[in-house]
Amino acid sequence: MTECKTGQGRFLEDFKVGELIVHATPRTVTTGDMALYMALYAPRHALASSDDFARSCGLGESPIDSLAAFHFVFGKSVPDVSVNAVANLGYAEGRFFEPVRPGDTLRSESRVIGIKENSNGRAGIVWVRTRGIRGADETVVEYVRWVMVRKRDAASPIPEASIPELRPSIAARDLHVPAGLDFARYDFDVSGDRYALSDYSVGERIDHAGAATVEEAEHMMATRLWQNTARVHFDATLRGDGRRLVYGGHVMSLARSLSFSGMANAQLVAAINGGTHANPCFALDTVRAWSEVLEKSETDNPSVGALRIRTVASKGESRQAKAENGKYNPDILLDLDYWVLIPGPGSMPGQSNPRR
Amino acid sequence: MTECKTGQGRFLEDFKVGELIVHATPRTVTTGDMALYMALYAPRHALASSDDFARSCGLGESPIDSLAAFHFVFGKSVPDVSVNAVANLGYAEGRFFEPVRPGDTLRSESRVIGIKENSNGRAGIVWVRTRGIRGADETVVEYVRWVMVRKRDAASPIPEASIPELRPSIAARDLHVPAGLDFARYDFDVSGDRYALSDYSVGERIDHAGAATVEEAEHMMATRLWQNTARVHFDATLRGDGRRLVYGGHVMSLARSLSFSGMANAQLVAAINGGTHANPCFALDTVRAWSEVLEKSETDNPSVGALRIRTVASKGESRQAKAENGKYNPDILLDLDYWVLIPGPGSMPGQSNPRR
Amino acid sequence: MTECKTGQGRFLEDFKVGELIVHATPRTVTTGDMALYMALYAPRHALASSDDFARSCGLGESPIDSLAAFHFVFGKSVPDVSVNAVANLGYAEGRFFEPVRPGDTLRSESRVIGIKENSNGRAGIVWVRTRGIRGADETVVEYVRWVMVRKRDAASPIPEASIPELRPSIAARDLHVPAGLDFARYDFDVSGDRYALSDYSVGERIDHAGAATVEEAEHMMATRLWQNTARVHFDATLRGDGRRLVYGGHVMSLARSLSFSGMANAQLVAAINGGTHANPCFALDTVRAWSEVLEKSETDNPSVGALRIRTVASKGESRQAKAENGKYNPDILLDLDYWVLIPGPGSMPGQSNPRR
Repeated sequence: MTECKTGQGRFLEDFKVGELIVHATPRTVTTGDMALYMALYAPRHALASSDDFARSCGLGESPIDSLAAFHFVFGKSVPDVSVNAVANLGYAEGRFFEPVRPGDTLRSESRVIGIKENSNGRAGIVWVRTRGIRGADETVVEYVRWVMVRKRDAASPIPEASIPELRPSIAARDLHVPAGLDFARYDFDVSGDRYALSDYSVGERIDHAGAATVEEAEHMMATRLWQNTARVHFDATLRGDGRRLVYGGHVMSLARSLSFSGMANAQLVAAINGGTHANPCFALDTVRAWSEVLEKSETDNPSVGALRIRTVASKGESRQAKAENGKYNPDILLDLDYWVLIPGPGSMPGQSNPRR
Repeated sequence: MTECKTGQGRFLEDFKVGELIVHATPRTVTTGDMALYMALYAPRHALASSDDFARSCGLGESPIDSLAAFHFVFGKSVPDVSVNAVANLGYAEGRFFEPVRPGDTLRSESRVIGIKENSNGRAGIVWVRTRGIRGADETVVEYVRWVMVRKRDAASPIPEASIPELRPSIAARDLHVPAGLDFARYDFDVSGDRYALSDYSVGERIDHAGAATVEEAEHMMATRLWQNTARVHFDATLRGDGRRLVYGGHVMSLARSLSFSGMANAQLVAAINGGTHANPCFALDTVRAWSEVLEKSETDNPSVGALRIRTVASKGESRQAKAENGKYNPDILLDLDYWVLIPGPGSMPGQSNPRR
Repeated sequence: MTECKTGQGRFLEDFKVGELIVHATPRTVTTGDMALYMALYAPRHALASSDDFARSCGLGESPIDSLAAFHFVFGKSVPDVSVNAVANLGYAEGRFFEPVRPGDTLRSESRVIGIKENSNGRAGIVWVRTRGIRGADETVVEYVRWVMVRKRDAASPIPEASIPELRPSIAARDLHVPAGLDFARYDFDVSGDRYALSDYSVGERIDHAGAATVEEAEHMMATRLWQNTARVHFDATLRGDGRRLVYGGHVMSLARSLSFSGMANAQLVAAINGGTHANPCFALDTVRAWSEVLEKSETDNPSVGALRIRTVASKGESRQAKAENGKYNPDILLDLDYWVLIPGPGSMPGQSNPRR
């Protein structure tokens, strides 16, 4: 008799607060991944599109989009954390450090920081802090997420609830501005629009132009690229209705790409304060997005400003995320609270750069 | 009250003859883009497939397919030129210069060279000369196109019509042969067929074998790769029938790939004399193509010949592009008149190259 | 009158035993191809995912998956060997040599080693030994396949049957272990599971977790990436039912990716002993797989073991490949007999590598 080699993944009773889970399959990022990100999401931010533009901003060759780095790191955690998840409940304390570039090898690990059994005894919530690592031990992305996970056996005892304290948002002073980033001679001629930090007002709403109808082949190719193994994205026989669930991060990247319209200079994501996948997304849904400016801040780097944004993605006509009863409208897909880096007061919109 | 940051793009009254429009989002080309071009179009021309073959032709590593360069440059112009277009009416004076290679960063700009209001006063035609630029100011592709664009307001006055004079075709002597290109020791053993310039006759018709059924995910991935933002390609809610329109350039690349059958040695496109997207293409259309030889020419480089080709792509059974009344048959998608570079009299078909 | 330039490919009477067919279109492999392989198949074997992992195994940067090398080489042979094939009947004597890496240029040639006309005189079987070649003349993959090919003219005489003798399997001692491959300090922490050669037993069955529902866009993109031109994969008008046939190799790669669950350390394919595409695969089929261990062996390299595996892919619920009458069950897609390389007795599962 041989051991069963095809694990079913962790259930609620398999998580221990304090445990460190090292995730499988390190991944070297390539320009091939960047091309696929282009083909799947249509991002147009110049920093991740043009090596020359990235160099003119004090960086080397173009980094991958911040959210692509997030997806790589997230994907690795799925087989260990959420393969038996009922729902991905939220994110907090997400921070992005030095950008990820082609040639970097990423791996990922998660610390269990909280567990709470549901009152029905059949499932519970697990909180993990996941870290994306480059080289020996450099953190490139870090975030907390919590998921509802089934129990293998309702009779299993679960230790007393341990709920982590999480910050409602990352403070502007705690944002990481990449080393060398310099928007002082930012080329507004080719960046897509001329809006810098000072052009945005707290409370302002931006209805992004454009919309994206999702295809099965697209969301599956994206989700496989991140080596995310959650079966519900790939197996049409799992649900009664023959549909495959679109990975929530796919909607995040679609929304960020749509947000180029009105926020073309939001070149890097610096933090994710919180996020909710309010309703499931399926193939043939048409995704739209709007954003609201929540907060503005300068950084230690005078050429770089920070904008805290709430971006809402919808598959319908709702103009508000929530109904009067405080619940999300049924066509709302995503409600994401995050910080972006954008040219600040020390950038000079009037100046053009002959070399783009 | 804040400024509306999400522009609707230019309407007819926003174009001025003589104006130079600098398009957004420079783009560094990568081998990832080349792999996607392979996966989406199945080109088999050896020059863009094998670095060794390209080197044996006097070039460095493989350039991207000429039409991929065209699509990159075209895509950038869409948000400024044709986002409010009713129709893409034609191309002229398209010329290709030194090939584009991975690592090159492309940007794009368009000069408005003509405007003519329609008699109904609701729309009009705009002519632009678009230029793809590498580095400081090297033109890699250049072409004129004209589009019908809506007016924002029918009451807006439009200056007197200004219609540019365009050459019906690029003369063979004006074709650019890339520096160093040398078909003298061309490896016909692995290029796909043995036909050189002398094997083609003016008037000859070639019915390319093969056919390609188009999928939504494919044409959208391609069109996003070019950062072409025309909403009609991506948003199933725009038209009454729930269909997304396939980017006309997608059909151009499909037709060129099909044309490998019978024209395997047409390694580079040197010019686009004219082109018409005769009818719209939609997902699930099956594209076929045939070509006619319009003109033959030697070039200053004895190993390189030029063939002027008319390639017609169809989604049906028509054997002729036009009906007796001079109108395109309803299944005709594309009618493209262009020059290709092909081994000329100074190439030696008998010789094999040990290294491919 | 000009020669018809668009060949219809070889029919049975066009093959001569002993003939060498040089296939068209050499192909430089890139990291773009690797990214697409990720996006299309979701492989998670660390060796082909992480340059750092590959280096820690004594190789340079990550090689492409063994089956990707097989598909490139196979694809080139299609226009010459199987474009008029009725069926791809089998494989034998497949061997993989030094791994293929980005930057390598592959070409392919086939020797005709057998022909046998069917008793009905309308078709027959052709055996070819196909070789994938890098550089001047280094074999990277080699295999025999046989296909049933139509005759152009039933009246054409076919020489007496010549049937090659083929080995039922490659002997373990004939497997090629790549130069420098070293699993002595193999990083089981991030490879996905802890099973080495000694953990598998002959006769053991592994039911791989996961399933993959196939989309038209996906299998066509993959098959085009290999420059495989068989029209039945791309043209919805060919069959009466409007469906496109999925390339058999697509199912091989899906099955190998699914087999990560339970065989995460099977980093390289060393040989293909035999393979049958038992039933056709179409879009929207959901592919599952299980494996049986057929044979185990050490190699000359003490850190590297060899496992002979039979992997069966199914689109239904069958738990056995064949029914009692010896015929394949109708939901069985693939029955593949192959050798993989896996950490052997000289690898040290207890040791962790600080650098992944």
